[in-house]
Amino acid sequence: MTFRSEYRSCLAADLGPDQAGRRVRLAGWVARVRDLGGISFFDLRDGSGLVQVVVDPAEVPESSGLRMEFCVAVEGTLRPRPEGTENPDMETGALEVAADRLEVLSRSASLPFMIDDRSDADEQVRLRHRYLDLRRPRMAANLRARSRCIRAIRQTLDGLGFLDVETPTLVNSTPEGARDFLVPSRIRQGHFYALPQSPQLFKQMLMMAGVERYYQIARCYRDEDTRADRQVEFTQLDLEGSFWGRDEVFAAVEQAAAAVVKSLRGADLPLPLPRLTYQEAMARYGTDKPDLRFGMEIADLGEVFAGTGFRGFAGVLEAGGVVRGINIGARHLSRADLDGLVDRAKALGAAGLVWAVVQEGGGLRSPVAKFFSEAETDRLIRSLDASPGEVLLVVADREETASHVLGALRLEMGCPDGHDELRFTWVVDFPMFDRTEQGGLTPSHHPFTAPVSIDQMRERPAEAAAQAYDLVLNGSELGSGSVRIHDSDIQRAVFGILGISGEEAESRFGWFLEALRYGTPPHAGFAIGIDRLVAILQNESSIREVIPFPKTQSGADPLTTAPTRVAADQLRDLGIDLTAETRISLGEGSGGIGTPGKA
Amino acid sequence: MTFRSEYRSCLAADLGPDQAGRRVRLAGWVARVRDLGGISFFDLRDGSGLVQVVVDPAEVPESSGLRMEFCVAVEGTLRPRPEGTENPDMETGALEVAADRLEVLSRSASLPFMIDDRSDADEQVRLRHRYLDLRRPRMAANLRARSRCIRAIRQTLDGLGFLDVETPTLVNSTPEGARDFLVPSRIRQGHFYALPQSPQLFKQMLMMAGVERYYQIARCYRDEDTRADRQVEFTQLDLEGSFWGRDEVFAAVEQAAAAVVKSLRGADLPLPLPRLTYQEAMARYGTDKPDLRFGMEIADLGEVFAGTGFRGFAGVLEAGGVVRGINIGARHLSRADLDGLVDRAKALGAAGLVWAVVQEGGGLRSPVAKFFSEAETDRLIRSLDASPGEVLLVVADREETASHVLGALRLEMGCPDGHDELRFTWVVDFPMFDRTEQGGLTPSHHPFTAPVSIDQMRERPAEAAAQAYDLVLNGSELGSGSVRIHDSDIQRAVFGILGISGEEAESRFGWFLEALRYGTPPHAGFAIGIDRLVAILQNESSIREVIPFPKTQSGADPLTTAPTRVAADQLRDLGIDLTAETRISLGEGSGGIGTPGKA
Repeated sequence: MTFRSEYRSCLAADLGPDQAGRRVRLAGWVARVRDLGGISFFDLRDGSGLVQVVVDPAEVPESSGLRMEFCVAVEGTLRPRPEGTENPDMETGALEVAADRLEVLSRSASLPFMIDDRSDADEQVRLRHRYLDLRRPRMAANLRARSRCIRAIRQTLDGLGFLDVETPTLVNSTPEGARDFLVPSRIRQGHFYALPQSPQLFKQMLMMAGVERYYQIARCYRDEDTRADRQVEFTQLDLEGSFWGRDEVFAAVEQAAAAVVKSLRGADLPLPLPRLTYQEAMARYGTDKPDLRFGMEIADLGEVFAGTGFRGFAGVLEAGGVVRGINIGARHLSRADLDGLVDRAKALGAAGLVWAVVQEGGGLRSPVAKFFSEAETDRLIRSLDASPGEVLLVVADREETASHVLGALRLEMGCPDGHDELRFTWVVDFPMFDRTEQGGLTPSHHPFTAPVSIDQMRERPAEAAAQAYDLVLNGSELGSGSVRIHDSDIQRAVFGILGISGEEAESRFGWFLEALRYGTPPHAGFAIGIDRLVAILQNESSIREVIPFPKTQSGADPLTTAPTRVAADQLRDLGIDLTAETRISLGEGSGGIGTPGKA
Repeated sequence: MTFRSEYRSCLAADLGPDQAGRRVRLAGWVARVRDLGGISFFDLRDGSGLVQVVVDPAEVPESSGLRMEFCVAVEGTLRPRPEGTENPDMETGALEVAADRLEVLSRSASLPFMIDDRSDADEQVRLRHRYLDLRRPRMAANLRARSRCIRAIRQTLDGLGFLDVETPTLVNSTPEGARDFLVPSRIRQGHFYALPQSPQLFKQMLMMAGVERYYQIARCYRDEDTRADRQVEFTQLDLEGSFWGRDEVFAAVEQAAAAVVKSLRGADLPLPLPRLTYQEAMARYGTDKPDLRFGMEIADLGEVFAGTGFRGFAGVLEAGGVVRGINIGARHLSRADLDGLVDRAKALGAAGLVWAVVQEGGGLRSPVAKFFSEAETDRLIRSLDASPGEVLLVVADREETASHVLGALRLEMGCPDGHDELRFTWVVDFPMFDRTEQGGLTPSHHPFTAPVSIDQMRERPAEAAAQAYDLVLNGSELGSGSVRIHDSDIQRAVFGILGISGEEAESRFGWFLEALRYGTPPHAGFAIGIDRLVAILQNESSIREVIPFPKTQSGADPLTTAPTRVAADQLRDLGIDLTAETRISLGEGSGGIGTPGKA
């Protein structure tokens, strides 16, 4: 047992009531200390748990002046606590250690916050003292859960014959969405590595290399503008298989997900996981990451209001728009609440929102009820499966807007707090391309994704479906993947549709197009964000709670103060210098070429 | 079984002689193809092995024009090979698949080198086509061995209760030996992250956080000048324990090492591993990483030649130098060979080298034999345990030089080829500090290492021993570690001895000194280089053979061409620019501030 050492003979968790009289040596931290009639009582916390220690400073002078979070080693005799003083909330609550020796291994300064889960210290303060924050039971449990999650994944994939392969992290710029972090090379001045946004091209090369089943718990990097709950570095399970289609990817990922749920929640995840097409998800939930823990599905009301006399709807339908609605259930909403929903819908981009409350005995209470025919009212109530007292929200707008607005309102009205229930779903058949603001096409997943139909892609690329899929849990995208292109001609065709010229493709991806030419097997893969997965399973609202040393939204580490300024000569060794603008903004004066900054 | 898919019903390795008549679908690569009387025979290689396929292009037109490394799927009937055509060197050599369907999944261009272990392609060519190089059996075996090595380590440490914790890789500059790679921050222009040379301070903070047993398979970075067989990024097993001393570190590392040896070599590593002090290692082997697979130990000959009349030795001994020698065994060396050894010793830094060949019936053949008394000759022969015909090499010089030269000659004369035998050893009690060329002190390990004696360190720092230790295998340093300082006052004292002022310590390590103040437990740890470990166990002479996608000595990747030039506006987004000198050397003209380079 590696926990034993010269400092200790056992851990708190090893102590049982049958061991009274045993001599023990323990080491850990002083959690809660109190003096009763000159005798010190404290809970000793070690990596396994807590045990009460009783010590008399008159006999053991080292024990006087003990304070919270002192690190101590004690030696003494285990004994039952006096009757009536047992603590049933503590594993070792029937016992105490009567210490006759105590050594303060190191003292603690005053704590910036209490080491317990009730502490509500500011996150900046917690991050600046992360080594204390991680002593709190909840955070310690999150660290352990993260480790168990990754272990469950490894055991599953190892058992399925996958090979864990490490791909490089000093790479060249990749063509994915976000910006690359760049790393200047000292040996080749003026040249830069990039940190990988994912191991995408390397894992595809592993397939070319005949590694038929690959996985990696991979560190990835994304230099994105500040966005809610993202990190500049993050961890993903990355996997890929040769001679694979979508079903084989799903089977492997599902087994890994089930192992993680079993390990962290003790629950059996029913497999296979449900599948929704992208089109279905958008129509029924207004999003490509639907939260299936509650219904409140979006219904298309086009038929309900076909030929309606209500001009608000008729005009939209004639213009090719849609009328859609959700039933948010029986709620007591004041007129002000309902007006608030209208404002919210407008803030989300809708031209307006129609609300209607189903009345006892049929009929609607709504500002527009008078414009609906009786048949329309009945069909509306039936379409939304509505009962008296229930509130219906209807949006008439362009399809995209109606979908987005109702999807958002659905979540705001229905989304449960926390993540006690887990609802996974696949979303499949994503579009191959998205429109850019400039009217061009951009890959919806990434440019190495295979189309469902090559002919369709060539003829009507904007409508083509991709062999791309996401895994969604409780409304969060956990990961995404695709069947890849394994033919360099098709790869070139995709580059062409993306407006990447042959010459540019050659200069950016020539080495990869070359690699595709040597008998590349059909292959497919996936990647899952570990941070998000663990956060949801641990019922944490931020991924920062499950990352040992996270950075803030701006990419700073309040603990070590990274990123920091560096000496100008260090930069010049790399063949780079700060721009004049940067030097001025750092208060270093403008300088000229050849004038090192005073960093 | 995730290897099954629409492309295949089984793998080559699944096929046994009892399955003749079975219909099978297989997918893989065409390895060796030959036409006999119009019929094609080829070996199909998949992730599990090889099987021969027979196909008649007249019946299966898709099979005409098959070439090496085409990726194919076949369907057919398993049957015994005709008598006399079995191949006993192949697992499936008694069988063949008579294919009646074949699909070329993708074609292959002409190969730059053959996909077999006999290929001796230039390493640049191999790296440029690494996806083909990794198809070679030896390289595929190396990939699998690396994965198994890491798995064995994980299983061992998981079993011992260690927690796998991920530490950040966008950190601030660390005070270790080599240079940091820097990563410019876009959000905080003029500020830089560093890539970690090791997770040293983070793992110490995990100890402060109460994670009593930590490990990580960690990616680390080192921007060193080109040195033999190093990589700019590398992987290490990093571990640390609280309430630990050296013995607990050794026990954990030894169990991990034994698991790896068992997994890769099938052998039981006898534990505990031997321990040598640094002083002993230097005296007996002339190096702090002794190769124990052979004897040829260095003997001190000071007593042999005490009061000698041979002025060459007497002068050195009087000046405080040493006379030391090794017995390189019975060898037939010509006078030219022996002169070559003298030249080699000089090239290694010695003033000279005395050789002597032991004669039948006693006495020496040596240019200096006549200067030795009979007693000196006898004592020399006895001290080096020498028999007639054996060759003795003696160096009289400063202790450091004699040790270094004899250590190097010992290796050149005695080191076995390859690594069939494995000899591990610990080297302990390294010095606390080394002298810098400027006469100051620099940490021998790193500045967080605890001294053996604090008093000795304060009084005679240059002679103080550290609680630092290395693990050595067959003459290579596999890793190193130490008991850490867990007291901020001692940490400050070490900074003081290193000439780091209180102010500088505060500005560089203030956050760490602060962290030490909250009940830091005693702790100790270790790190092992995975690349070197796997290379030795796989009998490879370079770590590049066990790294999936290695870089060259200059840090370049011949496959992806990283590092590359990037657009000037990308740099300006980061607040940096190339220096004028760099732009000129890249042929971009000098430009002025505000003139983007033409990258």
